[in-house]
Amino acid sequence: MQQEKNKLWALRHSAEHVLMQAMQKLYPNIKMAMGPATDNGFYFDFDLDKKISKENFPKIEKEMQKIINANIPITKEEISVKEARKLFENNPYKQEWLDEIEERNEKVSIYKTGNNFIDICAGPHVESTGKIGAFKLTKLAGAYWRGDEKNKMLTRIYGTAFEKKSELEEYLKLLEEAEKRDHRKIGKELDLFCFSDLVGAGLPMFTPKGTIIIDELQKHIEKVCRDYGFEKVRTPHFAKIDLYEASGHAKKFGDELFHVTSAKDHNFVVGPVLCPHETQIYASRKRSYRNLPIRYMESDKQYRAEKTGEVGGLNRVYAITVEDGHSFCEVSQVKEEIKRMINIIQDFYGSLGLLDKFWVSLSVRDQDHPEKYIGTEEDWNECEKILEEVSNEMNLNAKRCEGEAALYGPKLDFMFKTALGNEIQIPTVQIDFATPKRFNLFYTDKNGNEINPVMVHRAVLGSYERFLVLLIEHYAGAFPLWLSPTQIIIISVGESHHKYCQELADEFKNNNIRVEVWDEDETVGNKIRKAIGQKIPYMLVIGDKEINSDNLHVRKRGSEDVVEINKQEFFDKIKELVDKKSQEL
Amino acid sequence: MQQEKNKLWALRHSAEHVLMQAMQKLYPNIKMAMGPATDNGFYFDFDLDKKISKENFPKIEKEMQKIINANIPITKEEISVKEARKLFENNPYKQEWLDEIEERNEKVSIYKTGNNFIDICAGPHVESTGKIGAFKLTKLAGAYWRGDEKNKMLTRIYGTAFEKKSELEEYLKLLEEAEKRDHRKIGKELDLFCFSDLVGAGLPMFTPKGTIIIDELQKHIEKVCRDYGFEKVRTPHFAKIDLYEASGHAKKFGDELFHVTSAKDHNFVVGPVLCPHETQIYASRKRSYRNLPIRYMESDKQYRAEKTGEVGGLNRVYAITVEDGHSFCEVSQVKEEIKRMINIIQDFYGSLGLLDKFWVSLSVRDQDHPEKYIGTEEDWNECEKILEEVSNEMNLNAKRCEGEAALYGPKLDFMFKTALGNEIQIPTVQIDFATPKRFNLFYTDKNGNEINPVMVHRAVLGSYERFLVLLIEHYAGAFPLWLSPTQIIIISVGESHHKYCQELADEFKNNNIRVEVWDEDETVGNKIRKAIGQKIPYMLVIGDKEINSDNLHVRKRGSEDVVEINKQEFFDKIKELVDKKSQEL
Repeated sequence: MQQEKNKLWALRHSAEHVLMQAMQKLYPNIKMAMGPATDNGFYFDFDLDKKISKENFPKIEKEMQKIINANIPITKEEISVKEARKLFENNPYKQEWLDEIEERNEKVSIYKTGNNFIDICAGPHVESTGKIGAFKLTKLAGAYWRGDEKNKMLTRIYGTAFEKKSELEEYLKLLEEAEKRDHRKIGKELDLFCFSDLVGAGLPMFTPKGTIIIDELQKHIEKVCRDYGFEKVRTPHFAKIDLYEASGHAKKFGDELFHVTSAKDHNFVVGPVLCPHETQIYASRKRSYRNLPIRYMESDKQYRAEKTGEVGGLNRVYAITVEDGHSFCEVSQVKEEIKRMINIIQDFYGSLGLLDKFWVSLSVRDQDHPEKYIGTEEDWNECEKILEEVSNEMNLNAKRCEGEAALYGPKLDFMFKTALGNEIQIPTVQIDFATPKRFNLFYTDKNGNEINPVMVHRAVLGSYERFLVLLIEHYAGAFPLWLSPTQIIIISVGESHHKYCQELADEFKNNNIRVEVWDEDETVGNKIRKAIGQKIPYMLVIGDKEINSDNLHVRKRGSEDVVEINKQEFFDKIKELVDKKSQEL
Repeated sequence: MQQEKNKLWALRHSAEHVLMQAMQKLYPNIKMAMGPATDNGFYFDFDLDKKISKENFPKIEKEMQKIINANIPITKEEISVKEARKLFENNPYKQEWLDEIEERNEKVSIYKTGNNFIDICAGPHVESTGKIGAFKLTKLAGAYWRGDEKNKMLTRIYGTAFEKKSELEEYLKLLEEAEKRDHRKIGKELDLFCFSDLVGAGLPMFTPKGTIIIDELQKHIEKVCRDYGFEKVRTPHFAKIDLYEASGHAKKFGDELFHVTSAKDHNFVVGPVLCPHETQIYASRKRSYRNLPIRYMESDKQYRAEKTGEVGGLNRVYAITVEDGHSFCEVSQVKEEIKRMINIIQDFYGSLGLLDKFWVSLSVRDQDHPEKYIGTEEDWNECEKILEEVSNEMNLNAKRCEGEAALYGPKLDFMFKTALGNEIQIPTVQIDFATPKRFNLFYTDKNGNEINPVMVHRAVLGSYERFLVLLIEHYAGAFPLWLSPTQIIIISVGESHHKYCQELADEFKNNNIRVEVWDEDETVGNKIRKAIGQKIPYMLVIGDKEINSDNLHVRKRGSEDVVEINKQEFFDKIKELVDKKSQEL
């Protein structure tokens, strides 16, 4: 499988070079900046003296096809930095790149496509352009050089390539679906979140509708965790740098830290994670073995200084609302704690109907590089053994992944397959012997000795922002009833029906059902189309007939049929579906 | 009444001078720094070359009494800064003070007590020391010069004075009560919040128990507000300075703002208030008159850069969790919106049994200083008229208080009398014509015109931190059932009862009752005393007799009687008391 992936990678890398060669021919004044092959294709950033649009793609693709048809050999050479500097003497981007190679005291690897095109590149590539197979340019975007908004905005062209045409077609279909499910598009259409130039990029604000979804998720995860013995705490967003020097995060996050100052000489750091504060609640009292395990959870914002040019949408933000949890326990309790956390993960994702989307990684050390980790050999062996046992006893079928452990210990990572075929890691359970020692946390054991507890970290839904993206994509905006910001829409046919609509809405509200009334002076057809666009679970159109009926006439999302149902029965049905967090209506 | 207050003020001011004079006699190397008369007495900061304790108070008081008995006249003089500089040439604190007077180009007002004592002072004072009446020194504390922790730590002596001995005695009794109800003391005893040197002062962390109280308050206020049409939003803690320049807060808060930077050249301000972000959610869509009023609420942290030396406990913190709310509406809707907000205030405080503790201030402009306000004369007149009418129609009996309006409009302030006799303002309703204009907020009216909405601001419980202080003081830690972090304590008599205790606890948990089991190897008497100290509403002691009974044996907080009650009946009773937010058990 890895071999397959490498082959695809080489093919896309070569397609990227072919794109550059074609661009050079079509736009002689162009400067090549930088670009990689990616999991989904490739992209390249060009410094162009004119604006281009997707309408130029067919011409570029035609030029690329010519190069592919010519089946030109692609060959590698190694040259000195000096030679390379000369080769790219008019290209400041390559010169900057060469600065870095020079600093590392390395040779420069270049790839030539026949005698017409050369680029600095680590490879790999296919042998000749004819091997590239099916390709397509897919997207055009602006991108700052090195992701820094103070640099020049370049033109980024995205494309993809596959061995077979059928594979390309399948991917393009998925891409089309991805555009339909894009969280920025749906978020705007359904009015879930917004940004403001006065507030700044990377700082999303959640509207009432988006807030309902986040609140429902929070209520649900807190309920599940409380049932497993977690207690909620609240901590501030700042601390002295001392806290993060003790935890190791000051060093780990470095430039990604936000610093807080004032005219009154305050000096704080904004928390890039929540756990150090929680160690301080643990440390605020004497603890005995009788108190353990102590389990804290918290849903709040952490802040990380991403590159200014790279924040966008909800996937990359400065303000990240995380749902975090930690257990402080004795070594002998670790295994049970881990099982407990896996139960939480299974309960939560099971209730959302998403459990079948996972596989589990047992992420262990890279045995060849022990210097990358902290802690003793014995602790590590013990921890890996525990995780292995848990995986067996709970039938997780965890796949051992070398080198994927955290700095302080091994972990179980739950890998999620998204609606668009991407694989992301969300839930995780990690054993940590190091942090309690760094913070001098203790408990008194049965014999009166002061012992460091073990910390078990767990994330269930990760960050609310990214989880919302995942749900938007998964449901394409058609959220299950319990998460739908508006559960029922009542559409008034004419003015004489307004009053009845309001009375009905009050009845729904009294039954804790989220309802909106649309009595605008607009055609019923328009309102129905709008309700369909808003993906509201149930629609009630109220005219003369409906006013005079004791029953409700309900149209379900995705159906054109109107079903007559007794009012109380409908209330009960909704309550049941919400309680079950049902996917169905 | 004002005259009475002034008289008391003068008397305390003079007592403060007598304290200084006595200190000078007893500690010849002393340097006088600064001190005021206060609502409750007076204090003064001394630079002493030795450590003193409360044990020195009798000696100091004796010396003070001598000065009072001598009935020395207190007289005022005005001298030049130059003369004053000479008079206090060895006192760097007075010199610093004189710098300021010099900058303002003023004369120096000094007060002499006979020929033995002189201090720079604006007065007023009583004519002679004999008029001081009854006095007492009450407290000793360290205090940084000018509240800045980089300055020297001085010795602050607190005292108070009254005309009559009986008044002093009454006050001292109250003070004793205040010490018993001190939120720092109770907060520690009941484990509600904590601080950490690694995190820093002014940044409280709420433990699981404190978090329960805050969460219950938040759930309750959000429920009340939702019933009145408020929708919850979520906004980040940062924004570009542009947001606060537009709102006017950058200027208003100045040095109190926290600034955020990073190694990647980010530049943000931490929000000192929540409302500007909310204007941006309003601005994210086109709004029509049909959408108004739009009502947002949010419970989140705002941050203000208090002086480093002045933060302490929960009353003065950097991280303030506020419950904030705003309505955007048409001018014609303002009156109804205000009534709605007053209904919320009445519902909330009524449900807490605190409604009778209030009087209402109609806080209007200072007519002599129109330059202190923004907005047109007509808008102001209109707003004051509306508030007056609301006060009449809702029987608020609001007292007109000139000069208490906000920058942008008049307001109704609810003044609360605390358990310790202090008066504080918590709820407020404010009309604001200015902010929507500053942010270019619009809606389309019936005729298609773009109109600025009016903003109505409201606070109900204010900041959660200060509200918690108020509740701790009010209940002296004996919270009503619905707010009690632990509602039931189950005490196991012996090891053979542990299992039954756990089963019982599970039953309580399944009925959503917060329960703890104490099965430590400790005497039952000790555990009972501990439960009384923790002010837990109900106590169940489980021994052989209780295991074999179908009923529960319940001891109520504040009573020594054990009452036998059917289990289901007890569950039902608790549910009812919690739902009613009852003060009684």
